[in-house]
Amino acid sequence: MMGILVVGSVALDSVATPFGRVREVLGGSATYFSIAASFFARVSLVAVVGEDFPPQYLSFLEAREIDLRGLRIVPGRTFRWRGEYGYDLNQARTLDTELNVFAQFSPRIPEEFRREKLVFLGNIDPDLQQEVLHQVEDPELVAADTMNYWIERKPESLQRMLKEVDLLIINDAEVRQLASEPNLLRASRRLLSWGPQALVVKRGEYGALLFTDSDCFAAPAYPLETVRDPTGAGDTFAGGLLGYLANTGDFSPASFRKGVIMGSVMASFNVEDFSLERLKSLTYSEIEARYREFKRLSHFEDL
Amino acid sequence: MMGILVVGSVALDSVATPFGRVREVLGGSATYFSIAASFFARVSLVAVVGEDFPPQYLSFLEAREIDLRGLRIVPGRTFRWRGEYGYDLNQARTLDTELNVFAQFSPRIPEEFRREKLVFLGNIDPDLQQEVLHQVEDPELVAADTMNYWIERKPESLQRMLKEVDLLIINDAEVRQLASEPNLLRASRRLLSWGPQALVVKRGEYGALLFTDSDCFAAPAYPLETVRDPTGAGDTFAGGLLGYLANTGDFSPASFRKGVIMGSVMASFNVEDFSLERLKSLTYSEIEARYREFKRLSHFEDL
Repeated sequence: MMGILVVGSVALDSVATPFGRVREVLGGSATYFSIAASFFARVSLVAVVGEDFPPQYLSFLEAREIDLRGLRIVPGRTFRWRGEYGYDLNQARTLDTELNVFAQFSPRIPEEFRREKLVFLGNIDPDLQQEVLHQVEDPELVAADTMNYWIERKPESLQRMLKEVDLLIINDAEVRQLASEPNLLRASRRLLSWGPQALVVKRGEYGALLFTDSDCFAAPAYPLETVRDPTGAGDTFAGGLLGYLANTGDFSPASFRKGVIMGSVMASFNVEDFSLERLKSLTYSEIEARYREFKRLSHFEDL
Repeated sequence: MMGILVVGSVALDSVATPFGRVREVLGGSATYFSIAASFFARVSLVAVVGEDFPPQYLSFLEAREIDLRGLRIVPGRTFRWRGEYGYDLNQARTLDTELNVFAQFSPRIPEEFRREKLVFLGNIDPDLQQEVLHQVEDPELVAADTMNYWIERKPESLQRMLKEVDLLIINDAEVRQLASEPNLLRASRRLLSWGPQALVVKRGEYGALLFTDSDCFAAPAYPLETVRDPTGAGDTFAGGLLGYLANTGDFSPASFRKGVIMGSVMASFNVEDFSLERLKSLTYSEIEARYREFKRLSHFEDL
């Protein structure tokens, strides 16, 4: 089994949806990713929090056996995000972002993490993502996320970073925006021509698409009666996908497809409750059962 | 092989998309449905056009061996629709609707069509849809479409009609609106409780979902590099689905799933060009090849 190095944010989120609200709960891209990936593989986390970061959240991460030697605790307040969702749960509205200690985040990869074979670059400044890559030695698979904020502000940095990335995992609006092309297939082909060998397009309640030069795979989303909080769906998806790939060490097209389903499985659990509550109680046999449900959901016979 | 009776509109469409524009070309729900279904089964069409209806369009329908004994040609002008699409091809903007002879449409089913085993009620007034049902004898499968216009204006008629329908085929916004429920899964369950044994939720470029009491199937959409005109996608989908079911006479869950894929296949061809241009040149071996591509697109292995 390979290990995964993840770099990103660990945050305190305040979230309101039509189904409830929570205040200053555990959040952040690296957190969601790590917890989801920890069901499948060893995870080493690099991030920064303030001295106000609640110790019970550290204990939760430790209980999932996530290596926290790269989590710096510095004077000041932890990154905070406040947002809300309407009935259209595909679209978050950001009410407030307090970067706090995250504003000075300059990821230093501990010596003992530099030989990890899988690297996930969470959604941070593309220049920082590149800095991370220059500190790791010969990874076998580098995956990255990004968002409209960086597409608009640092397109050149982003394109430079993409040259060194094997797998880009972003949502469909971001694919179109980054490629300046409204047609998703053509936009995806353009992004692949910039460097990555594979692209995963996340489409929320519509599932995900996996593109490579020669292949396209469509994964459905699991129809849920209860979606209480979509926060972290994209990062738990990435955690399930990379976790599966690290676990098997198999980077074949068939394995990537299974990984995309595993990402969809983890995201489908995560949105059932606020913060990481659902993953806290999740068991591996529940994961396997839902994987089988995805199979039933999308299977049809040959003509 | 069973035959299909279809009742709906035959129209002249003027359409503008970012990829071109056409004026007064063949359109209408019953037209798209019939042409698509004609690749698989016998189709009998009931509709009305004006005396201005171009003879070459009649010849095209006849060339597809569609039984036109139920197509009335009456004094006056044919139904006309004018619409446009932006880069978001999921959303048509209606610029003008001229009902013309369609305003007085009161479908009379010819004696020789009343024993057809499959019936498709295109998107017309739900009271007229019911009138059609009262003229047919003991059909084995009744499918219906509707739209927001009728959901808003005739909800009671619609609910009455649904009691007599086996399969409802509508888009996701309509499912939510008709059920007054934002969650798609719960909305779908509510509609099933009103009568239909099956519900197909069309989601445009995101594919389709098939719901029954005990089952859910997610069909992907085929990622296309060229979507020139989405007009008629929903009706060619329904035509492919019902055509497949009529052809096989097999109404099992597995056959419904294959039918939903066949509907997706036909819709994916139709949007490649304006009006029915693409279906004009389509061959059955192209249909089979694309069905296999849908299989490749959505296949993944067990864990």
